[in-house]
Amino acid sequence: MKSPLQDSNVRKVTEKDIIHIFSEVFHFSKKPVLSGSEFDDCAAIDLNFFVSASAGSEPSADASAHSASLLFSTDTVHRKTDFPPSMSPWQIGWMSAAVNLSDIAAMGGKPVAFLAAIGLPADFSLDDTRELALGIHDCVSLFGAEVIGGDTEFHDELTITGTVIGVSGNKNIIYRKNAKPGDLLCVTGFAGSAGVALDILLNDPAFQAAGVDINSAPPSFLKNLTEPYPRVFEGLALSKTGAVTSMMDTSDGLAVSVYELAEMSNVGFIIDAEKIPTEEEAFRILSRVCPDSSSAKEVLLQKALYTGGDYELLFTISPNQLKLVEDVFEKLNAAGKSKSGLSFKSGYVSRFSVIGQAIGEKTVYLRTNLENSMQLKPLLKKGYDQFDK
Amino acid sequence: MKSPLQDSNVRKVTEKDIIHIFSEVFHFSKKPVLSGSEFDDCAAIDLNFFVSASAGSEPSADASAHSASLLFSTDTVHRKTDFPPSMSPWQIGWMSAAVNLSDIAAMGGKPVAFLAAIGLPADFSLDDTRELALGIHDCVSLFGAEVIGGDTEFHDELTITGTVIGVSGNKNIIYRKNAKPGDLLCVTGFAGSAGVALDILLNDPAFQAAGVDINSAPPSFLKNLTEPYPRVFEGLALSKTGAVTSMMDTSDGLAVSVYELAEMSNVGFIIDAEKIPTEEEAFRILSRVCPDSSSAKEVLLQKALYTGGDYELLFTISPNQLKLVEDVFEKLNAAGKSKSGLSFKSGYVSRFSVIGQAIGEKTVYLRTNLENSMQLKPLLKKGYDQFDK
Repeated sequence: MKSPLQDSNVRKVTEKDIIHIFSEVFHFSKKPVLSGSEFDDCAAIDLNFFVSASAGSEPSADASAHSASLLFSTDTVHRKTDFPPSMSPWQIGWMSAAVNLSDIAAMGGKPVAFLAAIGLPADFSLDDTRELALGIHDCVSLFGAEVIGGDTEFHDELTITGTVIGVSGNKNIIYRKNAKPGDLLCVTGFAGSAGVALDILLNDPAFQAAGVDINSAPPSFLKNLTEPYPRVFEGLALSKTGAVTSMMDTSDGLAVSVYELAEMSNVGFIIDAEKIPTEEEAFRILSRVCPDSSSAKEVLLQKALYTGGDYELLFTISPNQLKLVEDVFEKLNAAGKSKSGLSFKSGYVSRFSVIGQAIGEKTVYLRTNLENSMQLKPLLKKGYDQFDK
Repeated sequence: MKSPLQDSNVRKVTEKDIIHIFSEVFHFSKKPVLSGSEFDDCAAIDLNFFVSASAGSEPSADASAHSASLLFSTDTVHRKTDFPPSMSPWQIGWMSAAVNLSDIAAMGGKPVAFLAAIGLPADFSLDDTRELALGIHDCVSLFGAEVIGGDTEFHDELTITGTVIGVSGNKNIIYRKNAKPGDLLCVTGFAGSAGVALDILLNDPAFQAAGVDINSAPPSFLKNLTEPYPRVFEGLALSKTGAVTSMMDTSDGLAVSVYELAEMSNVGFIIDAEKIPTEEEAFRILSRVCPDSSSAKEVLLQKALYTGGDYELLFTISPNQLKLVEDVFEKLNAAGKSKSGLSFKSGYVSRFSVIGQAIGEKTVYLRTNLENSMQLKPLLKKGYDQFDK
């Protein structure tokens, strides 16, 4: 994941340049690496690798009968780029865990363990520290994992690097690379809400002028940005259907994520602008800021496509599996509502939308309905790249 | 590990306060956690926990027949507290890996995988980035592990959080808690060299006045600080002897580490000042800075006891196992010299010294030889605590 906040530094180096260097230098060579983290949200390493390594034999992927893998991801969040000023220590802790858990969710894994390396600034009190730790703990344990260790040090800028370890049966791991032409493109939850919330929390002048600020916006709406809810239950349930051909999270923005699935799977997509799920509250807020409802709608579409901070799952399924996936979400919501079921947060509804379809042509199109016709335009490949501004 | 560089901020909060909060909040509860990272250099988690979790059953430690664990540690290094100005990007990369590998070594584990979350400042070129990546790669692969993933982002201060995963047979894991009265206290390598090197690299006035600076000091000596060599081979070999009752690394300083073993094992120690191994080169340098050789000797003892940055292994053994441990080091050096053996760096000699003995009384004493008598004084419990200055 990359961070949603803006930064004024101008940089010619892009994140792709840097990832390219790391891929070259680290060249994930060994067989047990089912996927390196340059390809998917997590590195996936065959469990047998650890079994044979611990037995003192040369690590290999076929030492015993396990057909499962460990998933690993590490992500840093820090004040300057990830925490709007109003965020509480608890929210900061929650976010540092959530962004990592989302990576496990994106591969259909089950998070089991978490490590937190925490750099605390001098103005951070012990009470704040406790709240931050609680935020990490609450997020991690809600989704079934446990904090197993960490590191504490002094840092000018509040900086938290989380590392999450997940597990998955090998046949259940979902990569980015297996979408096929004809597959339906789906996304969980709503897109664009985090982007709108960010404008509010950063006191965007247009929002300020319209009287939309942190005090007037519904707190639950702002939490779309400040308390991202990793789709762990959804990812895990989807991984068991066998219906999902590719998946990743949308933390860097919907458009770049669609492009990523397209590139990794060697396909293209047509996305229907009207099917992109956006939140009513986001539209209501933008209606106050924009001159009319049609421009509010357009701005919301831009936010939905091109801003980061939504931690939704973007995935593809075979068209004949749609009913199966619908059933999965129905069951998730039933389990979330039952007292003995999943620990959904209050009022949470697990949902997904079909927003497009994979095509053989390696281009990503956005389809919009004009008055009497449809318009098909290449989607802009833009999103949040911290290095590219 | 904590960082050896000084920082001028005054803080009332100590690292112990913060660790106490984290221990309270995170309360490592589940059975498969053989040791939480508040007790040892790594968290040790039973391999069966991951096997059963991946099989979809409730995680437990007795799901199958493996008697091995995974070891996890995460450590952050950053410019302000860890990288003297002269450090090269390659050395920074090396250090970020080495400090983590040392934690695996300290429990007798074998490192197998590494993740690096790298925050790069704006003035860091692509060439520097490549060198930094190479430093990580070279260190990790020298000791048999592989970089499996990471994260890249923009950060005002160069900040690298490494996470290392190691393996060990459960019976081979060495904790801090099992030293017994009568056990011999041992340490690998030399103590205090990193502290002396730091004074040189930070242009300490006394060193400057004596003409000892980065240009006149032997580059190989400065590497004691800038290229710490994790004692992975030593830790692994020691873990197989069954002779070692407790172990940790000395990254926070020798004195605090001895106190830590004492507290965790519920024993005390008598340390012989004269037996603490120091490097001839360190003494030569201090002899130029100090008025006479006896004060140079005294300063070196202070450095050896109370400065961090030496990544040596501090361990205890039963007295009747000394020969066995001596044999281990003899074999290590033979293997290091053979072309097919361990990848020791050029000129490296694997060594250890017996520096004291565990006692039943829960105090740590330093024994010094005066002209006609011996003096026994409680050892100062001081070392590098980044939060306590």
